[in-house]
Amino acid sequence: MANRFRVLRQVIAGHMTSRRAIAAATDLSLATVAHLIGELIEAGVVVEAGFEDSGGGRPRGLLSANAHGGLLVGVDVAETYVHAELYTSALTVLAEAEEQLHPEENSPPQVVRHIVSCVRAVIESSKVDYDRVLGIGVSLPGQVEREGGVSVFAPNWNWHDEPLGAMLAAELDLPLYLDNPLKATTVAELWFGAGQGHEDVVVVTLGTGVGAGLAMGGSLYRGATNSAGEWGHTTLVLDGRLCHCGRRGCVETYVGAPGIMQNLRELAPTSPLLHPDDQTATIDALAAALAAGDPVAAKVVTETARYLGVAIADLINLVNPEVLVVSGWVATKLGEAFLPEVQAVVARHALSGPLEVVDIVLCPLVRNPVSLGAATFALEGFLATVGARTHSRTAVNSS
Amino acid sequence: MANRFRVLRQVIAGHMTSRRAIAAATDLSLATVAHLIGELIEAGVVVEAGFEDSGGGRPRGLLSANAHGGLLVGVDVAETYVHAELYTSALTVLAEAEEQLHPEENSPPQVVRHIVSCVRAVIESSKVDYDRVLGIGVSLPGQVEREGGVSVFAPNWNWHDEPLGAMLAAELDLPLYLDNPLKATTVAELWFGAGQGHEDVVVVTLGTGVGAGLAMGGSLYRGATNSAGEWGHTTLVLDGRLCHCGRRGCVETYVGAPGIMQNLRELAPTSPLLHPDDQTATIDALAAALAAGDPVAAKVVTETARYLGVAIADLINLVNPEVLVVSGWVATKLGEAFLPEVQAVVARHALSGPLEVVDIVLCPLVRNPVSLGAATFALEGFLATVGARTHSRTAVNSS
Repeated sequence: MANRFRVLRQVIAGHMTSRRAIAAATDLSLATVAHLIGELIEAGVVVEAGFEDSGGGRPRGLLSANAHGGLLVGVDVAETYVHAELYTSALTVLAEAEEQLHPEENSPPQVVRHIVSCVRAVIESSKVDYDRVLGIGVSLPGQVEREGGVSVFAPNWNWHDEPLGAMLAAELDLPLYLDNPLKATTVAELWFGAGQGHEDVVVVTLGTGVGAGLAMGGSLYRGATNSAGEWGHTTLVLDGRLCHCGRRGCVETYVGAPGIMQNLRELAPTSPLLHPDDQTATIDALAAALAAGDPVAAKVVTETARYLGVAIADLINLVNPEVLVVSGWVATKLGEAFLPEVQAVVARHALSGPLEVVDIVLCPLVRNPVSLGAATFALEGFLATVGARTHSRTAVNSS
Repeated sequence: MANRFRVLRQVIAGHMTSRRAIAAATDLSLATVAHLIGELIEAGVVVEAGFEDSGGGRPRGLLSANAHGGLLVGVDVAETYVHAELYTSALTVLAEAEEQLHPEENSPPQVVRHIVSCVRAVIESSKVDYDRVLGIGVSLPGQVEREGGVSVFAPNWNWHDEPLGAMLAAELDLPLYLDNPLKATTVAELWFGAGQGHEDVVVVTLGTGVGAGLAMGGSLYRGATNSAGEWGHTTLVLDGRLCHCGRRGCVETYVGAPGIMQNLRELAPTSPLLHPDDQTATIDALAAALAAGDPVAAKVVTETARYLGVAIADLINLVNPEVLVVSGWVATKLGEAFLPEVQAVVARHALSGPLEVVDIVLCPLVRNPVSLGAATFALEGFLATVGARTHSRTAVNSS
């Protein structure tokens, strides 16, 4: 399965590529690549797309992802909206739909209703047949148990053990794959973003909460209970700031949006940049002030970069990745401003060996990486069934 | 390759086990298991060992590791000694040899001479033919580049880029596999210790330095340049104690042997337990004082457990392992005393999901885990050549 994913990742990354080029890039034998490509062509996700001159011998077949085969849906469920996208199996967007979630709309049936409505909207507006859809990936906030698709814990909605997968399956007769935004973002970077062509990748997400998605050997690492990546709740300052998790000194309390607000509060308690009850407005104000050369905003960036650089250096020392991607809405708004300062702090705090090989970059994906990653889960789930297809279409994360 | 290792790990862990039991334990198909077992029998590492009643049908063949096939050598090179062991391919010890390294004997040719001497001693004292030896694993202190077998950096000897693999290959006409003690200990736990039957395992080693070996999906995780696991150089206290690596507040400065000495110094500067220039004597004195009910020693354990518990909780939150093993010479001497206190601190600092599933245990291996792990590298290297054997016998880490 891992090799099937690696081969398809190469086809997608390489656009028009040959079996020989894939074998060279993956260290798999040409025979293995030819076999896996055969399966992927049979499954309709890869097509023969032309030939290249092989310098005298038989011309070599070129491959590309199949833009006319099965389709995938990726849904990003956030605290304030539901956003669905319909993709080809080459993960090109065909349609999107979004519905706002009002603050009082946080019961599971209400959220399910919006998900179903968005999924139907992208399929029906594209006038494609439901049978062409290979699967639907759904990213839910909080902790998700993939088997059966249960929202184990969504702190902002106070959900505990809600069977979202079963509720969705009752409405949508298609294979469903549920997980959370950290996992979805990491898979999106691995297949389509800064992780393309790499095996060991860390994706740091900075938002209200923070986390670190770990991809190892070219696959998402989930841990024993799919909760790996809780970097936000590792200690940066022993006995430091109180975290909502009950511990003290967690990384999240220094570099998540509320942590950045606290950095601002400590530097300039009466700053007009501070919107005490509004994280988004505060981060937006910081971004605007930075652009205008405001010295307080610059100090907040320096202080935040000091915390973030040390915490990122810790990840580099422990995990020794090839690429570390900084993602999430806070990074979208402030990343360009603080990346050089973060890189400078990392250079002082990471060990020289792992520092030499790692690239620290901002998320290069221009569209919603959570929807894209959710759709990729559906693609991975479909690929897992290749060669062992059943006729059941309603299994939840049945791979 | 990963599946071949998983199947053999099951054979070794299960003693007399059937193909069906292995398939159930690994989630591989019975056909895949039968194919891999066939390869392992052909390679001489597994044998048919009898039959079990299958309840009416054809009796099922039972398998065990082959105690009479190829042999393996594992060498633990430490700052003060070289210790070699000869094993069957079931990793049972047949012979051992140890030579002391005097403090002035730290040039690469001197160390190589002791390694070669110990390897020859275990093979010749056992009166076995060199041709029966499948490979030699060597653990070297510091950072090791596996390809070619180069000691990239051994801080206590001030070695930089020493080609130990090539020097050993000139003397020993057998396949060589070089790595470091953290990696060797982790592989030993995974195959033979507390990691048996688990996929996601963390091995924390406590000595002069400290580290965390990561096994993910049943395989050792190495990172981009084989330096993954530098947990000792992650931050526990921002701007805390100065570390020899140049950073401040590293985990190692609180829970490595010199860190524990500092904990003692801060609690009781004039304590007779403190042997300022001798880590081993101080740790031994602490262990003896603890056994005698000394209150200062108890306080040192509590303080060390506070640091260690938080740093271990960080690993549990980030990695979400099934098992976390505490190993290393400091753990051998003090582990039983501080484990309950460490577990109590972890229980307060780890997130509830990952805490629920993780077992925190002391290293259960009674013999030298570094030699055992080094020999396991040789076994893994041999298995990598199964089905694609060449006649070259001197390649270094050629897999």
